[in-house]
Amino acid sequence: MKKMENNPLSLVDKNSKVAVIAHVNPDGDSLGSTLGLGLALKKICNQVAIYINDEFPKKYSFLPAYQDIKLYQSEDHAPFDLCFVLDCGDEKRLGYSKRILENSIQVINIDHHISNTNFGHINLIDAKASSTCEMIYSVVKDFKVEFDKDIATCLYTGIVTDTGNFIYDNTTSYTHKIVSELMELEIDINNITYNLYQNRPLNTVKFLGYILNNLHICYDGKLAIIEVKKDLLGEFNLSHSDVDGVINYARDIEGIEVAVLLKEVNMQEVKVGFRSKSHVDVSKVAQNLGGGGHKKASGATIYNGLDEARKKVEEELKRVL
Amino acid sequence: MKKMENNPLSLVDKNSKVAVIAHVNPDGDSLGSTLGLGLALKKICNQVAIYINDEFPKKYSFLPAYQDIKLYQSEDHAPFDLCFVLDCGDEKRLGYSKRILENSIQVINIDHHISNTNFGHINLIDAKASSTCEMIYSVVKDFKVEFDKDIATCLYTGIVTDTGNFIYDNTTSYTHKIVSELMELEIDINNITYNLYQNRPLNTVKFLGYILNNLHICYDGKLAIIEVKKDLLGEFNLSHSDVDGVINYARDIEGIEVAVLLKEVNMQEVKVGFRSKSHVDVSKVAQNLGGGGHKKASGATIYNGLDEARKKVEEELKRVL
Repeated sequence: MKKMENNPLSLVDKNSKVAVIAHVNPDGDSLGSTLGLGLALKKICNQVAIYINDEFPKKYSFLPAYQDIKLYQSEDHAPFDLCFVLDCGDEKRLGYSKRILENSIQVINIDHHISNTNFGHINLIDAKASSTCEMIYSVVKDFKVEFDKDIATCLYTGIVTDTGNFIYDNTTSYTHKIVSELMELEIDINNITYNLYQNRPLNTVKFLGYILNNLHICYDGKLAIIEVKKDLLGEFNLSHSDVDGVINYARDIEGIEVAVLLKEVNMQEVKVGFRSKSHVDVSKVAQNLGGGGHKKASGATIYNGLDEARKKVEEELKRVL
Repeated sequence: MKKMENNPLSLVDKNSKVAVIAHVNPDGDSLGSTLGLGLALKKICNQVAIYINDEFPKKYSFLPAYQDIKLYQSEDHAPFDLCFVLDCGDEKRLGYSKRILENSIQVINIDHHISNTNFGHINLIDAKASSTCEMIYSVVKDFKVEFDKDIATCLYTGIVTDTGNFIYDNTTSYTHKIVSELMELEIDINNITYNLYQNRPLNTVKFLGYILNNLHICYDGKLAIIEVKKDLLGEFNLSHSDVDGVINYARDIEGIEVAVLLKEVNMQEVKVGFRSKSHVDVSKVAQNLGGGGHKKASGATIYNGLDEARKKVEEELKRVL
């Protein structure tokens, strides 16, 4: 690894007041990077606060030190010297946490989304990194903060989830090198695997079965669409976040180039997820609908009914399929 | 890596007549190791023959040099100086290829199955290796044969398939270190991922949907049983090997300790697959039924009808669940 020229950790001293925040609806990479960097910062600084907007997702409650995460309260308005914003392409994705950013003297934006808007005073953006956790590894390693099992567990979790278990094409030789080093710290991959992948409630598995039998395939077998009406969540006793994974099954069908998941949130609000298999850049498709993301995985929210939202999505995709 | 004391490649010279063989119903690790070692041997030896018993599985036809694999013909009886047997716990799993072994002066048995019977003149058995491909990497590296993109592609394929994409607990820091080195040879992981995971025929996806809606859960939610009658394969237009993957979905359900897949091959022949989540050693369960395998993944063949076979399996599992 080349020595980093301006390591943002060099701005931190023992008495700095530091906040670490991430995007709404946190996933493995945002939680892993937030906790991983938070734990590393605590080794060099006495006042580190980690915030998330939402409730901590139960699935990730195996992560070390997740109890240290605070829910944002309005009295936390006291200014921070430094605010690290992780895995967040856009200030709008910060939800309430945006107020923390606004009450910080310096904002350090560390992210791997190509669509990042460079909203920080310092912006460390690497669209070639597999994950924000991979970037945090490099920052922490370069600054010679000692890794431990807890930090390694957090960073491993972000890397394994954002690379689809090391098989998406964001995975590089360097990704595996990092993971090899993290595993030397004796992280319990059995426990991580169990929590991430081997503990699926039966209702989510039955729901997957239902979805696979009700796929809409169109555009000469290149497009798969999954529609999830609000009622269906009730029928299977699921929350919105339980549903997201099914889109990958649709993408992985022979001939399918793009898979779309339409989730009816309310009568006039539909969350849309996109997955691309090879050449289609779905970050652009999502951007045209007011969203964003990566080339092969992106999302947007459409403020229409389900039928209307579906038509808009089909229109956008007609141009690229 | 420590220098290997008796590297079996030191037995090979330029004019040796060498065969490389693997088990019946070859999977990613047996094909990857057979082709990977075969390609490496061709760099140091002029007469290398690679055999498999069965037709080459279409899914793996992206592997380099798979055209070099021969189907065993009885005229191939001429004695070999050396026969490398890979990823094969037991001579019985060699099928017809056993004749090649019997017509070889020295047999070199390289395998990572704990149940290996040490049937070779030289036995290199490492039950801690993630895969036979990982062992072949070490043998080739130690002997200083130069890796290239083709060899790397073969070995990567065996490692990624036998580790369930690097998440099973056979995955170690060393596994990731190897993969990091293999990826430096610019293997096309997009293409490998596409062929292994993103090219599933629609009928196999619909079949998965059907199976997930027809699981039998018993023993207080600890055991999931999938029964596949011969007729069902016809209905979905599937071959036996298309079916195997569904067992993992059953294992990954919350509370399930063991998943079983019963495949009716004929009226009096049932192939049984076992997957364990944590503490149950299913290699022992399979051994009690005349089969074998790994602690968390094993199999056996029961020569009874489906109902009888199921009863036998339930009896065996009652003791351990």
